[in-house]
Amino acid sequence: MTHSNADKTPYMLDEDSLHEECGVFGILGHEDAAALTALGLHALQHRGQEAAGIVTFNNNRFHSERHMGLVGDHFTDPATLAQLPGDLAIGHVRYSTTGETILRNVQPLFAELEVGGIAIAHNGNFTNGLTLRRQLIAAGAICQSTSDSEVVLHLFARSRHTSSIDRFVDAIRQVEGGYAVLAMTRTKLIAARDPVGIRPLVMGELDGKPIFCSETCALDIIGATFVRDVENGEVIVCELQPDGSITTQSIKPEKPQPERLCMFEYVYFARPDSVVGGRNVYNARKNMGFNLAKESHVNADVVVPVPDGGTPAAIGYAQASGIPFELGIIRNHYVGRTFIEPTQQIRALGVKLKHSANREIIEGKRVILVDDSIVRGTTSVKIVQMIRDAGAAEVHIRVASPMIFYPDFYGIDTPDAEKLLANQYKDMDAMCRYIGADSLAFLSIDGLYRAVGGEPRNNDRPQFTDHYFTGDYPTRLLDQDNESNIHNLSLLASNG
Amino acid sequence: MTHSNADKTPYMLDEDSLHEECGVFGILGHEDAAALTALGLHALQHRGQEAAGIVTFNNNRFHSERHMGLVGDHFTDPATLAQLPGDLAIGHVRYSTTGETILRNVQPLFAELEVGGIAIAHNGNFTNGLTLRRQLIAAGAICQSTSDSEVVLHLFARSRHTSSIDRFVDAIRQVEGGYAVLAMTRTKLIAARDPVGIRPLVMGELDGKPIFCSETCALDIIGATFVRDVENGEVIVCELQPDGSITTQSIKPEKPQPERLCMFEYVYFARPDSVVGGRNVYNARKNMGFNLAKESHVNADVVVPVPDGGTPAAIGYAQASGIPFELGIIRNHYVGRTFIEPTQQIRALGVKLKHSANREIIEGKRVILVDDSIVRGTTSVKIVQMIRDAGAAEVHIRVASPMIFYPDFYGIDTPDAEKLLANQYKDMDAMCRYIGADSLAFLSIDGLYRAVGGEPRNNDRPQFTDHYFTGDYPTRLLDQDNESNIHNLSLLASNG
Amino acid sequence: MTHSNADKTPYMLDEDSLHEECGVFGILGHEDAAALTALGLHALQHRGQEAAGIVTFNNNRFHSERHMGLVGDHFTDPATLAQLPGDLAIGHVRYSTTGETILRNVQPLFAELEVGGIAIAHNGNFTNGLTLRRQLIAAGAICQSTSDSEVVLHLFARSRHTSSIDRFVDAIRQVEGGYAVLAMTRTKLIAARDPVGIRPLVMGELDGKPIFCSETCALDIIGATFVRDVENGEVIVCELQPDGSITTQSIKPEKPQPERLCMFEYVYFARPDSVVGGRNVYNARKNMGFNLAKESHVNADVVVPVPDGGTPAAIGYAQASGIPFELGIIRNHYVGRTFIEPTQQIRALGVKLKHSANREIIEGKRVILVDDSIVRGTTSVKIVQMIRDAGAAEVHIRVASPMIFYPDFYGIDTPDAEKLLANQYKDMDAMCRYIGADSLAFLSIDGLYRAVGGEPRNNDRPQFTDHYFTGDYPTRLLDQDNESNIHNLSLLASNG
Amino acid sequence: MTHSNADKTPYMLDEDSLHEECGVFGILGHEDAAALTALGLHALQHRGQEAAGIVTFNNNRFHSERHMGLVGDHFTDPATLAQLPGDLAIGHVRYSTTGETILRNVQPLFAELEVGGIAIAHNGNFTNGLTLRRQLIAAGAICQSTSDSEVVLHLFARSRHTSSIDRFVDAIRQVEGGYAVLAMTRTKLIAARDPVGIRPLVMGELDGKPIFCSETCALDIIGATFVRDVENGEVIVCELQPDGSITTQSIKPEKPQPERLCMFEYVYFARPDSVVGGRNVYNARKNMGFNLAKESHVNADVVVPVPDGGTPAAIGYAQASGIPFELGIIRNHYVGRTFIEPTQQIRALGVKLKHSANREIIEGKRVILVDDSIVRGTTSVKIVQMIRDAGAAEVHIRVASPMIFYPDFYGIDTPDAEKLLANQYKDMDAMCRYIGADSLAFLSIDGLYRAVGGEPRNNDRPQFTDHYFTGDYPTRLLDQDNESNIHNLSLLASNG
Repeated sequence: MTHSNADKTPYMLDEDSLHEECGVFGILGHEDAAALTALGLHALQHRGQEAAGIVTFNNNRFHSERHMGLVGDHFTDPATLAQLPGDLAIGHVRYSTTGETILRNVQPLFAELEVGGIAIAHNGNFTNGLTLRRQLIAAGAICQSTSDSEVVLHLFARSRHTSSIDRFVDAIRQVEGGYAVLAMTRTKLIAARDPVGIRPLVMGELDGKPIFCSETCALDIIGATFVRDVENGEVIVCELQPDGSITTQSIKPEKPQPERLCMFEYVYFARPDSVVGGRNVYNARKNMGFNLAKESHVNADVVVPVPDGGTPAAIGYAQASGIPFELGIIRNHYVGRTFIEPTQQIRALGVKLKHSANREIIEGKRVILVDDSIVRGTTSVKIVQMIRDAGAAEVHIRVASPMIFYPDFYGIDTPDAEKLLANQYKDMDAMCRYIGADSLAFLSIDGLYRAVGGEPRNNDRPQFTDHYFTGDYPTRLLDQDNESNIHNLSLLASNG
Repeated sequence: MTHSNADKTPYMLDEDSLHEECGVFGILGHEDAAALTALGLHALQHRGQEAAGIVTFNNNRFHSERHMGLVGDHFTDPATLAQLPGDLAIGHVRYSTTGETILRNVQPLFAELEVGGIAIAHNGNFTNGLTLRRQLIAAGAICQSTSDSEVVLHLFARSRHTSSIDRFVDAIRQVEGGYAVLAMTRTKLIAARDPVGIRPLVMGELDGKPIFCSETCALDIIGATFVRDVENGEVIVCELQPDGSITTQSIKPEKPQPERLCMFEYVYFARPDSVVGGRNVYNARKNMGFNLAKESHVNADVVVPVPDGGTPAAIGYAQASGIPFELGIIRNHYVGRTFIEPTQQIRALGVKLKHSANREIIEGKRVILVDDSIVRGTTSVKIVQMIRDAGAAEVHIRVASPMIFYPDFYGIDTPDAEKLLANQYKDMDAMCRYIGADSLAFLSIDGLYRAVGGEPRNNDRPQFTDHYFTGDYPTRLLDQDNESNIHNLSLLASNG
Repeated sequence: MTHSNADKTPYMLDEDSLHEECGVFGILGHEDAAALTALGLHALQHRGQEAAGIVTFNNNRFHSERHMGLVGDHFTDPATLAQLPGDLAIGHVRYSTTGETILRNVQPLFAELEVGGIAIAHNGNFTNGLTLRRQLIAAGAICQSTSDSEVVLHLFARSRHTSSIDRFVDAIRQVEGGYAVLAMTRTKLIAARDPVGIRPLVMGELDGKPIFCSETCALDIIGATFVRDVENGEVIVCELQPDGSITTQSIKPEKPQPERLCMFEYVYFARPDSVVGGRNVYNARKNMGFNLAKESHVNADVVVPVPDGGTPAAIGYAQASGIPFELGIIRNHYVGRTFIEPTQQIRALGVKLKHSANREIIEGKRVILVDDSIVRGTTSVKIVQMIRDAGAAEVHIRVASPMIFYPDFYGIDTPDAEKLLANQYKDMDAMCRYIGADSLAFLSIDGLYRAVGGEPRNNDRPQFTDHYFTGDYPTRLLDQDNESNIHNLSLLASNG
Repeated sequence: MTHSNADKTPYMLDEDSLHEECGVFGILGHEDAAALTALGLHALQHRGQEAAGIVTFNNNRFHSERHMGLVGDHFTDPATLAQLPGDLAIGHVRYSTTGETILRNVQPLFAELEVGGIAIAHNGNFTNGLTLRRQLIAAGAICQSTSDSEVVLHLFARSRHTSSIDRFVDAIRQVEGGYAVLAMTRTKLIAARDPVGIRPLVMGELDGKPIFCSETCALDIIGATFVRDVENGEVIVCELQPDGSITTQSIKPEKPQPERLCMFEYVYFARPDSVVGGRNVYNARKNMGFNLAKESHVNADVVVPVPDGGTPAAIGYAQASGIPFELGIIRNHYVGRTFIEPTQQIRALGVKLKHSANREIIEGKRVILVDDSIVRGTTSVKIVQMIRDAGAAEVHIRVASPMIFYPDFYGIDTPDAEKLLANQYKDMDAMCRYIGADSLAFLSIDGLYRAVGGEPRNNDRPQFTDHYFTGDYPTRLLDQDNESNIHNLSLLASNG
């Protein structure tokens, strides 16, 4: 997504958490390609709930269905799947980052080229997307969407290379940032992961047919086997041969860089049952809670998770501290898609739409609230107030990740730096007073690294990317650096 | 709802659990009546997700909005709320039990009468509903819906009494079964609970204005105060007086019966943070797990809840047994409204759409799976298989309620008796083999009673109704007894 | 329809013409009953464009589809027709008269009774509808719509008679006014026409199966044969016998009254190719124009119809006068359903959305404009201005019907009496000045009678009803006379 | 539109007439630009009923609304117009020619370019559109639609010229065929007409602000003044200057060709009240009927138009022959958008959905049926049968245009040559027998030329293009000539 962070402020007022932008899934050679892709996207729904799309190829024709809403709202209808014949499919779930989601921007995107059609979907963000888009437009390209995927399409279309593989590699080597890209031509399923491997992408197999997807949970739902991670900087091309066999080719960068997976996949984004970079996410989170209890012990009666994100860390915290784990906050799961346009009255009621205190558990107790992360802190203020209203004797906030100081440019929707809690208050005491808690503690960087990888941070060569905590960005930020001389494109406001 | 259980079999194949049919909310004298009702219904959404409706009264006119879908899909739009002016409102969420939900059946229902309009909504089921309907039709009544609420409307309309209160009492005293009814006239908000108090109904207050709702969680969401339970057999009438004050009148049965609340409210239906019959539901469920561990101990490595229903009992089980509580099954919360029309492929994948094994937690472990209840057992078979596929060394099922043998006729959607797991296998061993577990145990009746009320079952005068476990129905079952001589009405199949 | 005329004023500002309220069609014993009914309703679409409904009976069940919009918008979809199996069907097209059309009011209406289900649809208006409704509600009836048809349903349901035929006759003899009613039970198709035959209703036959419909054009579209008019006051019952044969029974009033068909069917409502009361409507209209030319000759260069209503009379006028007939005004037929919510700017442009001057034909010419009728005159003002703007030398208005002084109570939507042009100006000169024409003339009452029936009006026993011109109402007007003591019901404002 | 004619056969089976593909409207400098454009498009609705779109520019942003359906279905809603602020607008109505209309193809199209945004809409067809598209794709362009307008966008984007005017002229000079193009940048409204002026385009003015539109009727509806025709080959650029004034610049081809307007605009497409090429269309059609009567007299009792297309010619025929003009066929105008998916039964009933015989006028009469044109003849067969069924003594067909032998490539949807009636029968007698008429006659080429322009055809330098009658195409047909070596693009089948 190419966007300035400034636009998102109003949205972030409602939703005080970070958002992954997308999930991808692709499969080659399976007769149920579209249905399996729909299921895979359903398992990836937590990575984007605003829109979903699937493209298939069959009988010399590409077929596309793209719809606003959940996967299950449209893609389980047999009539819709019947519009998606073929044994090659890629799909995409999307979280809107700009507030003006329109169907034109829903992926996968498709282009008709002289070498044949190509469809493409990606998760992540190109840090030189605007720069490339500007160059392309100056060279006469016409952009129909505001999606980064379209930039890859144009680079592919304009490549001087002949073969579609060479064109794809040529295109993907020009983009910078964090991304997991899936592409498909008439016979090929192509997967690519960014040079430092910020965004996750795994390879699996079902009935001997290759699958690529954002997380392993999308393999599990269809009973597929995990094969391996796509490596950082790697392009994998699976091709259906005329004899029906499928060949697989791996193209690796000449100068490979060390992998630096995004820490927030472990902290918040990935599903607890997924294995990311070889590590179970639930265990990583439990460890975060465990380490947090060791680092910031406090005497209390109950450990209460802020559901659902804080639950694994709270279990770890309870196990480390011996304080009982209790469901002191009940989450209303029907909020998901609802209350898109809340009234002023409902807005004023704030967080209670999603969370409700379980008074019997809270009343008169010293409560440790465990949350996965704090972004702006507005939600924490409301939750602490709710717990106090329910009669808690003390409220101690324990956050299973470090303080966030810096924006992300690799596909995570972050508020402006000055809106982040950590930048608004000069010290922990001030923060704690703002939130209204009796005490407040964050997990240390090393506590986090140990929870995920077993080792403290190697500051010379960090094992992960943790720029939101440290400011140590794993790539250059071309669009950001050029921001002054990139004029804003006058985007089309369109309903049709 | 008047329906035969036979129709529901196909639906139950997909959904191996019991379903409450409805939730109600009403408020008198508050300027934000409709918005508060929408919020209350949102908190009661777990009691019915298929449709929602609100009726208000303002300026000599009743206003009605009824929509298929979640409360948040329609009733948070300011334009919709603007169609619902007034300071008196009742609302309803509905779970469809017949497969042919149509808007005509969505409550509240309304009728124009000589004494003025009346709107009515209810949770529960009348055990003489069909019998009464047949008598009414024979007397020239025209029924426009298949809802039990309409029966009350007709009885009200045909009552020989003059005052609307007398008419309502006259009508409600003719119906039998389990119900929580809310009604409103131009100036009155009326609440009624069935003679033995099977369905719950509570009274609350906000800014001095009376509220009635199915559960206390609907009070909490809007910051209202709990006043008391509506008693079994009681009719409470709140009336707006010309001077703006509100009077409250309680009409109790001449021969009160002892209360027998539905045990399944504690086992499954009510929200964990609700207080039902004076008892916190989360604690009751934790106690069920606690007692279950005491009754049916087994050596194991992890206690894993079948989410979300089994989670509180699993916490109790873990606390009692000292075996660690772990999230070994991850639930996909986006399933809620999705996959209404799954394809055959997706149907074959069964339970995995909703549940996924967290392999790292399961592999090589002796697993205790804690579930709230088992109805047909088809889900349990799939979950055990899923846990075994994830590499469990042993799988022990512990069910935090007794075996279900009998259908319900008070508003719970149950499969035919012969479809219930408990009726299909001659002993616990056979059941365990069918499910594929290494061991299987259910909570005892007394264990359940103790968990909820602190005392074992008083068999002479049971403290709750538990007919699905024991066959001890708290009322006569007129429609069932007369079934042979009640001809089926040829219902209209209508889309408009 | 039970409504006060006062509500309609705002609507009439946009639409300066009269509106018929409905059309009906029914067929018994034909395997394509629903499709043939859809076609018949399509041919009757000019009688109502707001909503359409069809009920069929098949396999012990009634089936109903009712939709807002044109017949062709919904009822030509094979999926919709598949919801309407059976060989017995009645259908209805509706023109909204109240501005608050809701699906509950769309006909046919259906009721489940002890003697079995009954569906009913009607065209027209009961002059004692409100009075009956009030009596029914006082006796405990619950009304779910504001439609007159529901009154017949209740009278039928409450009748003391045993057979459905006796019940229907009992019910229909209690209502007064102008109506053409179709009803169906499981085996019977019933047609009834009001005692003086104000509204038309004809009987036809296709493949030996009986059909009833508002106009003969609905027979022509499906190639059915005209059998005869249903007589005024007659009830015809066609019944499917167990052996597959169909019997027909005619029930006539004990004291038959002379027929008085509504003159406006000839002037404006009926389709030109229909035969109403044995007379071709196109010829009747041409005769009106012919007689008008004889009565009110003026020298001119062209005769221009106000399309489409004025076209047949303009042809007659041109033939009688020898002045050439020319299309000096072009009508935009796409206006039909469009511009339901025009903007203020578009509203200000008024009549031009529908009509446009054909300047080449008008410029420098003396123009005779022939219109079918003038109601409020607001459209005439705009059309004369448009013709003058196009350069006409003279504009002479000739109206092919008499002046309208009185409201209708038999199913025609008329403005309040004081809004009618004829009541606003004291003489023809004043009217002509208001309209801006050089001359203005209306057809005489006798000219109209001669055009339709060949004879002048028999004032002792008028051959038609012409109350809007003469004030001579053919029935008593009970609701109107009782208006002071009928309190307005507080109707439900409902969107669901 | 780039398409092969072959695809359209199935569609033409239902609709035995030719179809214009589009209408355009644009205005610069008027504060009500969008509302006026909506009205103009409403007046042009006869040129395309499938979709409509409007683009405006305001506050540095382009705004677009494109919707399937009629103009009045969407663009009269104040909420929609509120999405279209600004005083510069272009709009488009579209008739679908391919059967797979998707929103991506609905015009105006928009592109973001380095020189700023540009929107474009056109009526007509490029005879080298496929060839250009192929060249563009080979050069790396990505096409998102199948619309010819997108070709102009790409040529504009890739032009080496600096100014937007030079770029537009550069682009438009590369396309061949028949077209009327409107384009808009941030400050300019640009109009272009093809080199021989096949498609019409006129310039008008309202309150001193320039307007361009397909026909003068779109000026009349908003009270705008006709200024002049855009000349063949001319590009007119109106530009809003910083001081608020508007400049107008005309760019004419270096080697102008003689104009050859499409004869079918006079025969069928244009609205009767439009002035096309300086000639009133209604008068031209009346003259065609007049000349037809002179050329092919036959004794008869009535002249009956096939409505609505044949009406003006029938009036002319009646005036020339002295035989009375009568409405012997009634058209159901509600068919317009309805019956999009007719059932088989309804399909079998064919033409009667739209036309109905007025038996009283036909029975026993010698009938002259006047139609505007005959394409495949399938409709004529049904209409003659319908007239015979109504009892006509004789049926004589008179067609107010010559026989059609050749397909069109300039924006008219024509069936394959071998499907045309004129190519299926070896002589007029065989045709007449096929149609079932007693006699059949077509207007001569010279009769047509005289009716429109007053002079017979100048065979050395024809005054109009008449290629469907004569095979004399006014331009080369590059795509057709290259058809063998243009491979079909594998288009995307998309619903989103």
